[in-house]
Amino acid sequence: MTEQTPVAIIGAGPAGLTLSHLLHQHGVESVVLESRSRHEVETTVRAGILEQGTLDLMRRTGVGERMEREADIDEGIEISVQGERTRIPLTELTGHTVAVYPQHEYLIDLIARRQADGGALLFETTVDAVGGTEDAPVIDYTDAAGRSCRLRADYVVAADGSRSPHRSTVDPTGAGRHRHEYPYAWFGVLVNAPKTQKELIYATHPEGFALISTRSDSVQRYYLQCEPSDTVDDWSDDRIWEALHTRADSPDLRISEGEIFDKAVLRFRSAVTEPMQRGRLFLAGDAAHTVPPTGAKGMNLAIADVAVLAPALVRALRGRPELLSDYSDIVLPRVWRAQHFSWWMSSMLHQAPDATTFESRRRLAELSSVLSSEAGRRYLAEQYVGRDLPEFEV
Amino acid sequence: MTEQTPVAIIGAGPAGLTLSHLLHQHGVESVVLESRSRHEVETTVRAGILEQGTLDLMRRTGVGERMEREADIDEGIEISVQGERTRIPLTELTGHTVAVYPQHEYLIDLIARRQADGGALLFETTVDAVGGTEDAPVIDYTDAAGRSCRLRADYVVAADGSRSPHRSTVDPTGAGRHRHEYPYAWFGVLVNAPKTQKELIYATHPEGFALISTRSDSVQRYYLQCEPSDTVDDWSDDRIWEALHTRADSPDLRISEGEIFDKAVLRFRSAVTEPMQRGRLFLAGDAAHTVPPTGAKGMNLAIADVAVLAPALVRALRGRPELLSDYSDIVLPRVWRAQHFSWWMSSMLHQAPDATTFESRRRLAELSSVLSSEAGRRYLAEQYVGRDLPEFEV
Ligand SMILES: Cc1cc2nc3c(=O)[nH]c(=O)nc-3n(C[C@H](O)[C@H](O)[C@H](O)COP(=O)(O)OP(=O)(O)OC[C@H]3O[C@@H](n4cnc5c(N)ncnc54)[C@H](O)[C@@H]3O)c2cc1C
Ligand SMILES: Cc1cc2nc3c(=O)[nH]c(=O)nc-3n(C[C@H](O)[C@H](O)[C@H](O)COP(=O)(O)OP(=O)(O)OC[C@H]3O[C@@H](n4cnc5c(N)ncnc54)[C@H](O)[C@@H]3O)c2cc1C
Repeated sequence: MTEQTPVAIIGAGPAGLTLSHLLHQHGVESVVLESRSRHEVETTVRAGILEQGTLDLMRRTGVGERMEREADIDEGIEISVQGERTRIPLTELTGHTVAVYPQHEYLIDLIARRQADGGALLFETTVDAVGGTEDAPVIDYTDAAGRSCRLRADYVVAADGSRSPHRSTVDPTGAGRHRHEYPYAWFGVLVNAPKTQKELIYATHPEGFALISTRSDSVQRYYLQCEPSDTVDDWSDDRIWEALHTRADSPDLRISEGEIFDKAVLRFRSAVTEPMQRGRLFLAGDAAHTVPPTGAKGMNLAIADVAVLAPALVRALRGRPELLSDYSDIVLPRVWRAQHFSWWMSSMLHQAPDATTFESRRRLAELSSVLSSEAGRRYLAEQYVGRDLPEFEV
Repeated sequence: MTEQTPVAIIGAGPAGLTLSHLLHQHGVESVVLESRSRHEVETTVRAGILEQGTLDLMRRTGVGERMEREADIDEGIEISVQGERTRIPLTELTGHTVAVYPQHEYLIDLIARRQADGGALLFETTVDAVGGTEDAPVIDYTDAAGRSCRLRADYVVAADGSRSPHRSTVDPTGAGRHRHEYPYAWFGVLVNAPKTQKELIYATHPEGFALISTRSDSVQRYYLQCEPSDTVDDWSDDRIWEALHTRADSPDLRISEGEIFDKAVLRFRSAVTEPMQRGRLFLAGDAAHTVPPTGAKGMNLAIADVAVLAPALVRALRGRPELLSDYSDIVLPRVWRAQHFSWWMSSMLHQAPDATTFESRRRLAELSSVLSSEAGRRYLAEQYVGRDLPEFEV
């Protein structure tokens, strides 16, 4: 038997779940197909910094309650240049804040809400292929019991993350894929330790970059610039602590230590597929674009995509397809500005292994120009907190 | 016979002449040795944009009168992205202006003033070598009549431009030289034509960069991004006009045409030597650092150097050598910030021939981020007009 839905959504990440929630708020039902278990989705630790547009959207659509209670609201960040710290007072400069609220907590809230609203969320359900005609797409999938099933949909949204195979349907030649590789990566650790301080520290040092961030009062998240080829075995605890203290300590602040209980290497990569749509198939979130972690924009961009895609789909289902035709053109400028910001923060804060002495000194002079100017600090802060999300009547 | 002077200055460019003028104002005499003729110095057309610190210094030291009367004061510039122009209101954003006043006019004013003040300016006089001991330098030179002569000095300042051989005395191993090459150059033309508009236009376009600047009501200075290997013969008048209109016209503005009477290729190059001093030998201006023309900082940096070097020399001659010891450390941060600004403007406005599609789109997104934000525009404007020059009591 073949099921039917107005919108089939592949992937229960931030993009897919937010989209199904927004569609429901406009009275449109959807089916979300997610290959992982609910437990896995709800426990995989990834992004943590929500920009103001994301926060506004969560509040506006009624899924911000627990976030409001539990998130750390950051009114500033610090940039440390060889131990000399400059605060960027985000709120004072922009009127906005960011929140530290882990991605999986947001997904827990959304899943609970979708289920309370009677939404169709299929976990342990893997999409095998999207076929049918351009006008009448058909999804073949394997359900939790291992059965092959079929779902017809008016529209299909591939929100299935950075390895999405559906990019090649939208962009068969690959000519619309724009990539950039960076000559460094991040070594991330989770530590049982008290907070070093409330606000994040982005530290740059001749030996490399470090990011001091926090997960809770007792769990801290630290990142160290490393070689892209490094593995977990290259970094002993001793090496980690030495690098963290060298790169991020300042005369009046010592990075707090504790038991390291998780180590992982994060690749740095930028990629954009454009356009992000073809016929009745749409890409959203990491399926269309990935950013390096420095700007903390990945999850926010995923949500920004569907803030446009949701009203566009609702209108199209009601016979007004114009906004949906423009989906790509509307969201891509934001994607590219976020790519720029992530590239800029990365380039300005990391010591590239192959940098010439000219490039290293120019980079430090850039930091000095930005940090010593109110306009420079505000230009950075504005991009850090992000712009408002567009709102469309349906 | 060997002459003696407190300060021997090699080169009558902006650095050398300004230095001798400033020293004189503090009652210290100097000898300027310049290989070219006075006529050649007074007619060679080079830089044209004076930042606010330079203007203030000219006014303060009594050589700004004709500039005040004749210079074009620019309160804004325009940045054109594929024909869409955004004004950067410099004065509104920073409280400062820049002036368009050709370098050779400034040199004419300084030479007249030095001569009225009885200063020793030796034209057609070429320095052959700086020798002697570190404590008692001796200059060997050939005078206008072809005679070999000798000059003893307490201090020697090499202000002899970008090919200065004295860099290798200050930095014998070359380890203090930091360079950067750019994958493009500028093709510059002088045109008998009315002004296109009062304010400069920095235009970027997929085909490359163009700068629309003005020399007077009837003479215009246009620049086009070209290959570093291009020669004057590669650019016919027709090709020039086509490129200018493609890159810089906008719907309501057409670049004004006229007879092209001068063509030249300008290399793009960044270099800094640090430190800029050794013993009693000091580098100033292009002798120590060169910038690509995009930021219009070359002449301004030359003057900023000697605004520190002059009081430092005066103090040292009066028995207080501390400021002179710190000369390099004081001026280099400004040099590096100017290097950054020139690199940034160059990278943001030029289409690098080997740019990936990612890099081109990122660059356009950066322009959009900067130009659409008041903070971004101000951050750019602040660097364009430059910072105040430091003032030191002697
Ligand atoms: C370690 C780490 C740290 C990060 N930190 C930050 C940060 O601080 N700030 C930030 O903004 N971003 C951060 N990011 C990026 C951010 O997590 C992603 O951008 C975000 O998850 C993208 O959301 P998405 O919904 O597009 O894709 P995903 O979250 O990847 O979701 C895609 C979903 O699709 C499912 N799926 C895939 N294939 C199929 C299939 N065939 N059938 C069914 N389901 C399928 C997957 O199981 C997955 O659940 C980080 C990422 C990582 C890995
Ligand atoms: C075409 C062009 C356009 C430019 N546009 C701009 C602009 O818009 N804005 C800007 O700020 N900068 C600009 N610049 C750069 C600017 O002109 C230089 O940065 C500036 O001239 C540097 O001044 P200086 O005194 O250090 O050196 P120079 O002006 O080069 O003076 C050095 C002097 O030393 C003399 N000399 C050399 N060797 C000897 C010797 N052995 N004995 C005696 N004398 C010697 C030379 O003849 C020369 O007169 C431009 C440069 C060029 C070439």
